[in-house]
Amino acid sequence: MRFTKFSTATGEKYGVIEGNLVKEIGDNVFGDWSFTGNSYSLEELDFCPFVKPGKVIAIGLNYRSHAEELNMALPDEPMMFMVSPSAVITEGDTVILPHPDHQIDHEAELVIVIGKKGRDISEENAFDYVFGYTIGNDVSDRVLQQKDQQFTRAKSFHTFKPIGPIVETELNPSNLAIQLKVNGEIKQDSNTDQFIHDIPKLIKFVSEVMTLEPGDLIFTGTPEGVAPIKPGDTMEISIENIGTLTNPVK
Amino acid sequence: MRFTKFSTATGEKYGVIEGNLVKEIGDNVFGDWSFTGNSYSLEELDFCPFVKPGKVIAIGLNYRSHAEELNMALPDEPMMFMVSPSAVITEGDTVILPHPDHQIDHEAELVIVIGKKGRDISEENAFDYVFGYTIGNDVSDRVLQQKDQQFTRAKSFHTFKPIGPIVETELNPSNLAIQLKVNGEIKQDSNTDQFIHDIPKLIKFVSEVMTLEPGDLIFTGTPEGVAPIKPGDTMEISIENIGTLTNPVK
Repeated sequence: MRFTKFSTATGEKYGVIEGNLVKEIGDNVFGDWSFTGNSYSLEELDFCPFVKPGKVIAIGLNYRSHAEELNMALPDEPMMFMVSPSAVITEGDTVILPHPDHQIDHEAELVIVIGKKGRDISEENAFDYVFGYTIGNDVSDRVLQQKDQQFTRAKSFHTFKPIGPIVETELNPSNLAIQLKVNGEIKQDSNTDQFIHDIPKLIKFVSEVMTLEPGDLIFTGTPEGVAPIKPGDTMEISIENIGTLTNPVK
Repeated sequence: MRFTKFSTATGEKYGVIEGNLVKEIGDNVFGDWSFTGNSYSLEELDFCPFVKPGKVIAIGLNYRSHAEELNMALPDEPMMFMVSPSAVITEGDTVILPHPDHQIDHEAELVIVIGKKGRDISEENAFDYVFGYTIGNDVSDRVLQQKDQQFTRAKSFHTFKPIGPIVETELNPSNLAIQLKVNGEIKQDSNTDQFIHDIPKLIKFVSEVMTLEPGDLIFTGTPEGVAPIKPGDTMEISIENIGTLTNPVK
């Protein structure tokens, strides 16, 4: 199923997308939900971030093709860091550069939306804890990333984590085309079949350290082709069978 | 005032400590609270973590004496990273080492408990956003910290972030003795007057990147003297005018 979240006159609502129609459901998207009877046209929606996540976990270098581009050895384990949930925005929202004199790069990523609380999750059971998948952009200030070494500041500024607008729950995440354009020009063009560590391995790895909760997000790494953005640009990320995430830059 | 949180037969409660008496208050410790009329003896309390934090932010190298010990130049800006809220435990809880063959160090720290939502907070207004101060232990797996470079995994394992049990709201945080003992032997013995970046500067720095929320924690860095712990040890951290945090290691 395809889920989304949007603003209405009576507050933020979740909905299920069926063709061009969005059928509103209760607030409890991670539990027992039912249709409210209200429905909307997909074109008219004012999208909201799908979650106010508890945790935003991100995985470094996870595409074989990107590692080769960087002449780096393939890591034997995932490399994990965390960024601030307050950075999350969604479709159409503007990415605002607080340091436009810095090199700020786009990073197209497949994002896991966690649906169930768990820790020490086995690879065999990993998909039980996945609610669905969405698109993410791990916008990164390279000057501060280099200066701090720790990635948190460089990747946590307000508006630096666009996600959404669609969360697809029925998806094989291991073979999906992923593409990012800036002003219509293709910059990143890869496939999740290049993952070094697949989704079950990532969930096992993260959940051995920390307890995952519904609404937590895991950014799964970006492929080759990251490049700088500047005010006035428009970024458009497409992932096969999910959709498109578009964000202007200011 | 001195606040704490504890378990009762009817759930977790906040309380205000007056001498040896703990006077129960409503749940809304960050808002308008009032006394419920119930009270307890401090000695009898079964402490709970003071918050289930949204964010746990930590600052690297922030004591002049520790920087000198490491022959490092004083950083011109704070260095920030994030760890998982699921690592938080409190007084008396056991720190469990998932890799006892690794070097795991204690790190005594003063911890800021945020009381009010805010971003882009000025140094002048910083204390308006502080609820109070408590004791923290930034337990760290040095093998994984070195391997990952990013600090999140090494410092996020379940039980690796003891805090509490007392949150003191009336405190000058700029001149407090801080001491950590392992099995009664003093290992860290310093004072927050060694801070490279003081509390208002830290709050300004963090809030320029991310929105702070009530219950967020900021670990303010550790002084010189960090050292390995092993199963069977007991760690005891004291901070002047706050109290003591004791945790066994398994």
